[in-house]
Amino acid sequence: MFYLVSSAVQRETHSLSCPSSPFFLSTLIYFVPLPRLQVLLCVHITQGDSVGQAVIVSWVTQDEPGLSTVIYWIDNSTEKYSAEGNYLTYSYYNYSSGFIHQCTIDNLEYNTKYYYEVGIGNTTRQFWFVTPPPVGPDVPYTFGLIGDLGQTSHSNSTLTHYQMNPMNGQTMLYVGDLSYADDYPFHDNVRWDTWGRFIEKSTAYQPWIWTAGNHEIDLAPEIGENEAFKPYTSRFYVPYKSSNSIQPFWYSIKRASAYIIVLSSYSAFGAYSSQYTWLQQELPEVNRTETPWLIVLMHSPLYNSYAGGYMEGEPMRVAFEAWFVQYKVDVVFSGHIHAYERSERISNIAYNITNALCTPVTNPNAPVYITIGDGGNIEGLTTEMTEPQPQYSAFREASYGHGIFAIKNRTKAYFSWHRNQDGYAVEADSLWFNNRYWYPVNESSNVIT
Amino acid sequence: MFYLVSSAVQRETHSLSCPSSPFFLSTLIYFVPLPRLQVLLCVHITQGDSVGQAVIVSWVTQDEPGLSTVIYWIDNSTEKYSAEGNYLTYSYYNYSSGFIHQCTIDNLEYNTKYYYEVGIGNTTRQFWFVTPPPVGPDVPYTFGLIGDLGQTSHSNSTLTHYQMNPMNGQTMLYVGDLSYADDYPFHDNVRWDTWGRFIEKSTAYQPWIWTAGNHEIDLAPEIGENEAFKPYTSRFYVPYKSSNSIQPFWYSIKRASAYIIVLSSYSAFGAYSSQYTWLQQELPEVNRTETPWLIVLMHSPLYNSYAGGYMEGEPMRVAFEAWFVQYKVDVVFSGHIHAYERSERISNIAYNITNALCTPVTNPNAPVYITIGDGGNIEGLTTEMTEPQPQYSAFREASYGHGIFAIKNRTKAYFSWHRNQDGYAVEADSLWFNNRYWYPVNESSNVIT
Repeated sequence: MFYLVSSAVQRETHSLSCPSSPFFLSTLIYFVPLPRLQVLLCVHITQGDSVGQAVIVSWVTQDEPGLSTVIYWIDNSTEKYSAEGNYLTYSYYNYSSGFIHQCTIDNLEYNTKYYYEVGIGNTTRQFWFVTPPPVGPDVPYTFGLIGDLGQTSHSNSTLTHYQMNPMNGQTMLYVGDLSYADDYPFHDNVRWDTWGRFIEKSTAYQPWIWTAGNHEIDLAPEIGENEAFKPYTSRFYVPYKSSNSIQPFWYSIKRASAYIIVLSSYSAFGAYSSQYTWLQQELPEVNRTETPWLIVLMHSPLYNSYAGGYMEGEPMRVAFEAWFVQYKVDVVFSGHIHAYERSERISNIAYNITNALCTPVTNPNAPVYITIGDGGNIEGLTTEMTEPQPQYSAFREASYGHGIFAIKNRTKAYFSWHRNQDGYAVEADSLWFNNRYWYPVNESSNVIT
Repeated sequence: MFYLVSSAVQRETHSLSCPSSPFFLSTLIYFVPLPRLQVLLCVHITQGDSVGQAVIVSWVTQDEPGLSTVIYWIDNSTEKYSAEGNYLTYSYYNYSSGFIHQCTIDNLEYNTKYYYEVGIGNTTRQFWFVTPPPVGPDVPYTFGLIGDLGQTSHSNSTLTHYQMNPMNGQTMLYVGDLSYADDYPFHDNVRWDTWGRFIEKSTAYQPWIWTAGNHEIDLAPEIGENEAFKPYTSRFYVPYKSSNSIQPFWYSIKRASAYIIVLSSYSAFGAYSSQYTWLQQELPEVNRTETPWLIVLMHSPLYNSYAGGYMEGEPMRVAFEAWFVQYKVDVVFSGHIHAYERSERISNIAYNITNALCTPVTNPNAPVYITIGDGGNIEGLTTEMTEPQPQYSAFREASYGHGIFAIKNRTKAYFSWHRNQDGYAVEADSLWFNNRYWYPVNESSNVIT
């Protein structure tokens, strides 16, 4: 029952964009599995269409399915709407999931605060979200960035700091590795539930845009689990069909002034593969007059100078980097490395096997690559770095934290990295981004020749 | 009914290892879809276990399922055995398949000629195969090599030449791209049937080891076909589970003195992906004292100097090449490029992003890479080459043909390439292979420094 209280407390006492619940500040909540209460848990939302006029609401009920209905209304309106979803369950080794509901609510008005309610009778819970402004070139919008969050006291610090950050992230770009359930015996899927409860303080109120990481693969042939991504895809829906993807692991959305492409490090990406041909068709379709900011997310970074996971992203870099440069991607966010790193604007696409041109060089058309896998999971920080720091690496530090990417207009966006050891508003690294299409001027003074 | 006649003719008149049917020498057979006769079609066999004591028999019945039973017996024995399989059907756009049967017969004796019979009553058809010798280090064994075969007059020449080649290939290593059905309107799946009928003259009598190519992907979202590899996996079974693979696209078998690893260019192969972790576990398990010859098959070549498809294999090269060198793979066979090419023993694994060491160099531990995608499909030859010929390329020529890899003992194997424009026994290129584990002496005089 305390969840209802908690939810009520959230609604009454916290700021609009990122409510946080004092209750959840206790890290105990996700270390001690709770008894199966007949309540709604793990509420989370994500964008439900290509432009931000739909939201997918998802939640879990434990002992009985209950309804898959969402009731929703505009703030201060008495007119209520209803949408019907559905639910599924899955099993994983000796674990049986609760009833995982999803319901898409659509035809929403832009730039509007909506309340929504799920559940039956006295298990009803109420939340809210704010729809984005219409897609357009000069719409300011602020994204949060977290990766490799897990469920430790560091995870809690990261998420709390994000929620308290006065820069007010409106939508989370989550770069993969969610619950780290697979680090527990038999991939203990209870950890997926506890993680869903942990993040709810944010995910119930603002969309998180999901990227699949290696900890979502959850293959365990030794215990008969041979279906890749089963817990992840059962729990985290994404609107992949609206961008003509055939798999939930790669897709795109427009949101405000940003075009966001999500890729999968753990799906096929070679020539002729579905992800490859999808991206090949997708990139030329991006209209920078409509969405100036072209952002790519994937879990495993294409540029990383930490010793851990060094060069793991090379196969995808070889496959996709030339396109990122050709289509002037502004920034690529990744996780996987449990640390922070920001690259120069560099490219390494001149290589032709025989010409020995394989060193990253400054390229104004290239994205900045940012690793933000420092959410704070059970595996700890990645601290060992390759030395000396390569020229392609502009800044690197192994501290837990989160990022903010604040688009101001078609030419300017502000990125900042916030370490957990600092106050919420302190920036340990930052960069004013110049849009690659509208204002392709290099932001960095550290030129590689 | 003529199939029965044809089959009977085959049994009576042709040599043991590679029967060919004069009937099929007319290319018309696979250009004109036949009416759905209540006969057995598309008979093919492949190895059914890890060591060659089992065979998977597959065939298609059209109007009715009939039985999924295989009756089999040792040549000159009156004792008959029976095995039960099963069948499936699939639909693809406006096509509905016949009943595709598969039946595994196991506990076979080594080095033994078996007859087998499928069908009911007067639709019964009889074929035979010879099991391999027991797995062991000095067992001579001869593999055929064909890729990108398709169903044209060139395809027919290639297959016929293979069957008539006096070097007597005992098992086919097929490097992907089978029917080219996807080159026809709506991926006309009748072409999968006609291809199955075309190859039957070989595939009913000796195992073909299958590799998935890009023409097996068969994704066509525009006509509602979103399941990758559907026709291929419905028709061509492989014994992937016996090598602890969870997908039919990567697996391994032992056969005689060879350890054969099949990889998928069109599945995920990045770090943490299922194929990657499988290969990582697989390579250290290869016991070269048991199977001296380590052969890898994949569709898209890691080294290719033709202009078509140039550098397409780079992502997988970056992912896997270091392992191939570490574990002294003898030879990597690929297709995809509609031409022939043989590499020097070279590697390109010293690169670390910042050291500029990205040019292939001579390496006695490296495999020879052979492209044999010159089976003769509807798309024609790949003729344009990068110029000058890079040093890593030892020999290249755009002609249709097939290859033979004849293992003599633990140290020596003989590879030859046979062009369709020559007589069956003519070798347009050849190389005595020295085994990398037992006799790692370079075979080539063309040294790259």
